[in-house]
Amino acid sequence: MSSEQEQVNQITEEVKEIVLGEDGQPLSKSALKKLEKERLKAERKAKDAEKRAAEQSQREALAGDDFAKDNYGVLPLNQSQTREGQKREKIEDISSSRIGESLWIRGRVLLSRPTGAKLCFFTIRQNYNTVQAVVAVDDSTVSKQMLKYAQGVQPESIILVQATVVAPVEPVKSCSVQDAELKITKLYTLNGSTELLPFTLQDASRPETDFEDENAQYVRVNLDTRLDNRTVDLRTVTNQSIFRVQSAVGRFFRDYLYKQNFVEIHTPKLISTASEGGANVFKLNYFKTNAFLAQSPQLYKQMCVCSDFERVFEIGPVFRAEDSNTHRHMTEFVGMDMEMAFEEHYHEVLDLFDELFVDLFTRLETECAKEIAVIKQQYPFEDFKFLPKTLRLNFSEAIALLRENGVEVGDYDDLSTANERFLGKLVKEKYNTDFFMLDKFPLAVRPFYTMPDPANPNYSNSYDFFMRGEEIMSGAQRIHDVKLLLQRAAEHGVDPRSIEGYVNAFKHGAPPHAGGGIGLERVIMLYLNLGNIRRSSMFPRDPKRLEP
Amino acid sequence: MSSEQEQVNQITEEVKEIVLGEDGQPLSKSALKKLEKERLKAERKAKDAEKRAAEQSQREALAGDDFAKDNYGVLPLNQSQTREGQKREKIEDISSSRIGESLWIRGRVLLSRPTGAKLCFFTIRQNYNTVQAVVAVDDSTVSKQMLKYAQGVQPESIILVQATVVAPVEPVKSCSVQDAELKITKLYTLNGSTELLPFTLQDASRPETDFEDENAQYVRVNLDTRLDNRTVDLRTVTNQSIFRVQSAVGRFFRDYLYKQNFVEIHTPKLISTASEGGANVFKLNYFKTNAFLAQSPQLYKQMCVCSDFERVFEIGPVFRAEDSNTHRHMTEFVGMDMEMAFEEHYHEVLDLFDELFVDLFTRLETECAKEIAVIKQQYPFEDFKFLPKTLRLNFSEAIALLRENGVEVGDYDDLSTANERFLGKLVKEKYNTDFFMLDKFPLAVRPFYTMPDPANPNYSNSYDFFMRGEEIMSGAQRIHDVKLLLQRAAEHGVDPRSIEGYVNAFKHGAPPHAGGGIGLERVIMLYLNLGNIRRSSMFPRDPKRLEP
Repeated sequence: MSSEQEQVNQITEEVKEIVLGEDGQPLSKSALKKLEKERLKAERKAKDAEKRAAEQSQREALAGDDFAKDNYGVLPLNQSQTREGQKREKIEDISSSRIGESLWIRGRVLLSRPTGAKLCFFTIRQNYNTVQAVVAVDDSTVSKQMLKYAQGVQPESIILVQATVVAPVEPVKSCSVQDAELKITKLYTLNGSTELLPFTLQDASRPETDFEDENAQYVRVNLDTRLDNRTVDLRTVTNQSIFRVQSAVGRFFRDYLYKQNFVEIHTPKLISTASEGGANVFKLNYFKTNAFLAQSPQLYKQMCVCSDFERVFEIGPVFRAEDSNTHRHMTEFVGMDMEMAFEEHYHEVLDLFDELFVDLFTRLETECAKEIAVIKQQYPFEDFKFLPKTLRLNFSEAIALLRENGVEVGDYDDLSTANERFLGKLVKEKYNTDFFMLDKFPLAVRPFYTMPDPANPNYSNSYDFFMRGEEIMSGAQRIHDVKLLLQRAAEHGVDPRSIEGYVNAFKHGAPPHAGGGIGLERVIMLYLNLGNIRRSSMFPRDPKRLEP
Repeated sequence: MSSEQEQVNQITEEVKEIVLGEDGQPLSKSALKKLEKERLKAERKAKDAEKRAAEQSQREALAGDDFAKDNYGVLPLNQSQTREGQKREKIEDISSSRIGESLWIRGRVLLSRPTGAKLCFFTIRQNYNTVQAVVAVDDSTVSKQMLKYAQGVQPESIILVQATVVAPVEPVKSCSVQDAELKITKLYTLNGSTELLPFTLQDASRPETDFEDENAQYVRVNLDTRLDNRTVDLRTVTNQSIFRVQSAVGRFFRDYLYKQNFVEIHTPKLISTASEGGANVFKLNYFKTNAFLAQSPQLYKQMCVCSDFERVFEIGPVFRAEDSNTHRHMTEFVGMDMEMAFEEHYHEVLDLFDELFVDLFTRLETECAKEIAVIKQQYPFEDFKFLPKTLRLNFSEAIALLRENGVEVGDYDDLSTANERFLGKLVKEKYNTDFFMLDKFPLAVRPFYTMPDPANPNYSNSYDFFMRGEEIMSGAQRIHDVKLLLQRAAEHGVDPRSIEGYVNAFKHGAPPHAGGGIGLERVIMLYLNLGNIRRSSMFPRDPKRLEP
């Protein structure tokens, strides 16, 4: 018995003994859970050790006579020695229509399952696609030694396989390719997994619904563990899908704006003055002086409009030195910002945003249907509802709706997070949409550069957009007149010297303009209802996390 | 006489008096030039004062009887009071085919030219398009008072104009619309320029060839003055074109990669360890610890490949705390990075890059022909030459070529900037291309994570791309094996603790992969032969510049 196996037995004994604690009381659920986790961990370790032993014996077997000895093994490190143009297939292209074909495929071993003395099943994965493959001992191609080798291949190793497409005995429900499987004829390890995995990919991809069964003994991989081991965690079919959706959202956003004659800009992240008063801004040494990290491209995109670019957008990092440890704040996130000159009324900009989001949501449904289906298997969610013409509510209407439903709130109070959520719920009930625009915010709760409403000085030409009751975008018509800008700054107690650069941009004529900034990760989190923004950021940053 | 006019006269006198200096020697050319500049500056000031006076008298005239009084004036600040859906035209859509039409247009006054007692000519600008417009006194629409108002409108003011498209007496060579001009029927100032311009837009857009005439007395707006007043400078038709080309390059790059199944990623710019040894990295306070600004997305894009994303790219800011004050270095620039797993040989990646750049250059020629033509008027340059299949030279071939042409250089020496340029020249002569790839760099001059050449350990599987003799991209096959990575790090004297996070990414299996990073601004600078990278960055950052 290996020392690891001994350890498992010992822990199992311990668990049995101390289910009743020292004071004779049964252990708490969480204590039991913890013990069970330890047991499972040790068990996994033991299994890994077993596999390593198998690998070793397999190597020894190689010494003997083996008709299949050229059909398997570890490939030398790829240093681009040769280029033969061998075609490698994508799992997504495999189906029953190709039964009988022989093909090559490079993929990851998601899991392997020895079955009896003559078979070993693999699940091979490429991004979010999986296929079943089988190594079956026969007289000509697969020897017993080859089977042993197959059994020793570690999960998450990258393998290169030659196989024949065959019909499975029954549909392979656990794989994305269900109507075909692969009969392996050659099996090479291209790059092995040299260390124990921090968690198995099965555990990391387990549907949330599995945990609803209280008797089930599943290991839940918590978010911090995932993030600490992000290179492994990002391999789950769910994460493969989430970040393809993220890529698509950026693409759809850009596609729409390019069509509307927007120019993509790149504005500096290193700036000389703390743009919004110095709070929540990262400061750094810059040669003989200091610099700050931009909290938004606000000033720069407005400068571009003052420079006649008319319509500009940027997708780039935004930095906030805010000590907020919530499900929806990060210290670095991706801002999708746009700004445009308009002719008569800032609602021209709202109209464009409306079309942009409807286009985005529509394309997500059709072009990302596969990815969304995969994500739903792990994190089930209600489909995102939106209207062909986006609902636009005035702030005063939202306040009225909240009051009708028992919320006490002043006419010009900003919305609390709780009220935003409740409003989202009420809007969903009344209008059947998860997406709406809230227009005409009170002037007092917006930044000094927001254009006042011409009809009522208590309000402003500003708006927020909401998805599932959470804000994803904030924007406004900006003041493009120097005199009014300085007056509003004074009313806000802003030191005019601190905004000199900003004000100067308007001194040589500026067109009326409006814009907004969208948090990319928030859009993904809320569309997919992921519950935590760290799930929609590849390598999230918050006050407590700078790694990996 | 205004005080400004007096000043002009005085300076003119001074110039006359002191052309012979105090010692009786003629003044140096540069001293004369300086004086002349001062004179021109004062003259401009005087002109501006005159215009302001005209504006004033025009306001007074308004008091009198005026049949056209509703046809001109300063509009109230646009606070989105109304939305009438008035159609506003684009200058680029105006041509002789529309003669007779009446239309509305919003644009900038590039310059105004009063002619005789009854006419005032405007050049109106929208981005890089210009059209001539004329205000002509008549009996029904344009009064003398309206003409006076027109004469008082400051350059760079934004005006809203109603006009009839008419045939010009002769083609308007100075404008982009040459076969039509506008007869103004209504003229409103939407947002005036309230301060003197730092320089005129004519001076800022003057063709470089104008300065070849030594007798010409043109004011040259130097780069620092431009950058200090970037909001005005970016309005030149040349800059409007340069940054539209920049936007297009990003778009073409992405378009191609999306088609090749690349996923766009966003990696953190705030990182916990100085990635490449701590030199040239910006450091900042991060809550209770320190953080650094990423010098490249290198590690993260490789992690994504290790996480099975297979093909990833990112366009984002890159930070270098390098005290380099050259024509081609900035402390913040836009990196276009990509990384991909390959099957057999890293030349698969070079092939993809080849196609990418050929596609990019081809699309630039066709889709940005207009912008390029505009840029050439100010900064004439030789068309960028590239081959349908990009030239690929081995490093050893480049060394041989240099030696054949008299350069003394060792087999494994890195290329100096001068040698790169000379090599570019030789390649252009021999192969008639401004773009080529240099493959198989000496191992010793590349980072530790570069894959050694399997055939000759002095070389490596790494490459640089060149445009007009300057490097625009650096890349390589990366080591994807933990053991070799640690060995190479040791050979480079890299502390293994400093690269722990990096190495960990490869412990659970990594496919062979290669990639590269392209400097966006360099591509633009070299394609357009702008001579200084600050001309291809909207708001450039260098050790001495953090503003605007």
